[in-house]
Amino acid sequence: MRPRLFTPGPTQISDQVTKAMAQPMRHHRSPEFKQFFADTSKLLQQFFKTKNDVLTLTSSGSGGMEGAIVNFLSRGDKVITVEAGKFGQRWGEISRAYGLEVIPLIIEWGDFATPDDIKNLLLKNPDAKAVLFTHSETSTGTAFDVQGITRVVRENSEALTIIDGVTSVGVLPFFMDEWDVDVCVSGSQKGAMIPPGLAFVAISERAWRCAETSDLPKYYFDFKKARKTLRNDTTPFTPATTLLIGLNEALKLFHAKGHEYHWQKYAAMSYAVRTGLTAAGLEVFSRQPSHALTAMKVPTGIDGQEFVKIMRDKYNLTLAGGQDHLKGKIFRLAHMGYYDHLDMIAFAAALELALRDLGWPLVPGLAVQGIQKAYTEFINKPA
Amino acid sequence: MRPRLFTPGPTQISDQVTKAMAQPMRHHRSPEFKQFFADTSKLLQQFFKTKNDVLTLTSSGSGGMEGAIVNFLSRGDKVITVEAGKFGQRWGEISRAYGLEVIPLIIEWGDFATPDDIKNLLLKNPDAKAVLFTHSETSTGTAFDVQGITRVVRENSEALTIIDGVTSVGVLPFFMDEWDVDVCVSGSQKGAMIPPGLAFVAISERAWRCAETSDLPKYYFDFKKARKTLRNDTTPFTPATTLLIGLNEALKLFHAKGHEYHWQKYAAMSYAVRTGLTAAGLEVFSRQPSHALTAMKVPTGIDGQEFVKIMRDKYNLTLAGGQDHLKGKIFRLAHMGYYDHLDMIAFAAALELALRDLGWPLVPGLAVQGIQKAYTEFINKPA
Repeated sequence: MRPRLFTPGPTQISDQVTKAMAQPMRHHRSPEFKQFFADTSKLLQQFFKTKNDVLTLTSSGSGGMEGAIVNFLSRGDKVITVEAGKFGQRWGEISRAYGLEVIPLIIEWGDFATPDDIKNLLLKNPDAKAVLFTHSETSTGTAFDVQGITRVVRENSEALTIIDGVTSVGVLPFFMDEWDVDVCVSGSQKGAMIPPGLAFVAISERAWRCAETSDLPKYYFDFKKARKTLRNDTTPFTPATTLLIGLNEALKLFHAKGHEYHWQKYAAMSYAVRTGLTAAGLEVFSRQPSHALTAMKVPTGIDGQEFVKIMRDKYNLTLAGGQDHLKGKIFRLAHMGYYDHLDMIAFAAALELALRDLGWPLVPGLAVQGIQKAYTEFINKPA
Repeated sequence: MRPRLFTPGPTQISDQVTKAMAQPMRHHRSPEFKQFFADTSKLLQQFFKTKNDVLTLTSSGSGGMEGAIVNFLSRGDKVITVEAGKFGQRWGEISRAYGLEVIPLIIEWGDFATPDDIKNLLLKNPDAKAVLFTHSETSTGTAFDVQGITRVVRENSEALTIIDGVTSVGVLPFFMDEWDVDVCVSGSQKGAMIPPGLAFVAISERAWRCAETSDLPKYYFDFKKARKTLRNDTTPFTPATTLLIGLNEALKLFHAKGHEYHWQKYAAMSYAVRTGLTAAGLEVFSRQPSHALTAMKVPTGIDGQEFVKIMRDKYNLTLAGGQDHLKGKIFRLAHMGYYDHLDMIAFAAALELALRDLGWPLVPGLAVQGIQKAYTEFINKPA
């Protein structure tokens, strides 16, 4: 088989983006590049559905997460972190690294927090300066109700809402301004559909006011400096220029089809895969699945690491396994990225072959047919 | 004219590297990519002339500089920073951002520090925990005697030597282990000849011991975590995979010709440009020029920003002007990168045209001939 990449980041990217990135090198301080950066920053605002500043950092999404903490909080601040997977835990880890007082809401992986859970915790911790949570938890394939959580935070406290939108922006409905979110971090290799290496951070005026008094140490991720240079259409440090060129191209392609198109496409793929694989006897891992990716339980008796290995070595298809204590117990398949329904069908065919290789009884075509039927159902359902 | 990029980062890169980076996306945790990352890390060790760990970070060089401070120093530590330009100043800025006690050695831009200057300062500050300096100061085109400075630091103190080698590694003779350097930071868009977006940090065992007790806050730039993942042939966060692929290709090309070849090539270009332009009546800015780039004074009566603008707008050739108080007073031309002598000749031809456009009297061909003569001299001189 030819190589196929289905990991929830890096994801598949389009030839047009690859070609754009192969242009001759340009200097990031030239007037042309500054205009280009200004245009790209506008495309990013549209991408986040915000009129606020969106900073572009040369780092992975985790660098953006660190910046979202060190710029808006201060020594000893109390923060609530919603930890329902590896990426939710990261909010806690970064907060502790900077000496913040962390009130973690620890949730079983695969489960989620409700707005009421957050409300209760806020009532017990009225002095919390921020609620840090995840829109789409990539380690478990779980979506969180950002709109609902943001609303209860606003209604019950002065805390900032700081959101990991790494696998949600451009993938799940997200309205930065309409939902009145304070800080949202995303990364380049997910909904933006370019290679990894850039992080984006959208920031509300309320958050910028906190930045004025923030006393946590920072330099490379100093957002006030980045805002100052953004006003001058540039970045404080040399950015990853080729990735910026790819980003501009990818966002133009994204906006040409629009948010609704992508949200629907990912919802259809996610629904079809979950429903189809369930029909074939597998089990969905998450209690509130994200459309960015699907996490499925590895069938009982099957070694999940062996399954991922056979998929890769025999069928040339790269999936993600489970992380930490879920190693060998789940596998994860990306929908976000340059994928379509037919890719999911191809994936299901490989899955069937690999499960049969491992001795799991599966009627050939059952998963493939399941996904095809569910997809047809989804696209034909009344709006 | 066709576009030509001569800025001291980003620099021109080869087609082979561009093509390598256009390969289909790969997942950074796959066994193939891990092998590939291990190979690339070995090529980097060779590049730095070290057996020590060389970390690869997804960030600009400045992120690597921040990491070199927050991982090896502790709250309240006293450090000596050699500040002879914008990048030397950066060592002071980052140190102050993290609350260190900074003893700056402030030097006029274009000038340099001698080993004796450092020795004197160390004798006055025997409790200094590190000496932070620059190998090749890109804002002024000045080289520093890393070997001499490192030796006096060793002879007179227990301080770590932490070096900005962003525009020196692969460009100027640099021997990490032989010179017994503790920490050296470099960046991808310079001597390594790939686009910007990666930083590299080579680290001695002595520095790693300081990391054990370092108490400055860090997360994204936590080098102990990065070393742990390096041992497992991966990175703590998703790396900029396309840039890593470019790096592997570029370092293989570099090593195929070897360090000596590149050092000589850059020395020849730098000597020829300085000598040739001096013969044409211009003046070298630096008192101890680096071969990575040449900074020339803009002739009296000429507006330096206008000169850079004409070079760009009329001749499609992008140079760097002066930074900060040198704005309009100098221009800077890269030698490091995918350049050769003939590129320098083309540059001189454009410079002649632009200076004549601005009314500066210059016999046509004088600079071109000067560079050609100096180059011939250089390559024919007895070894």
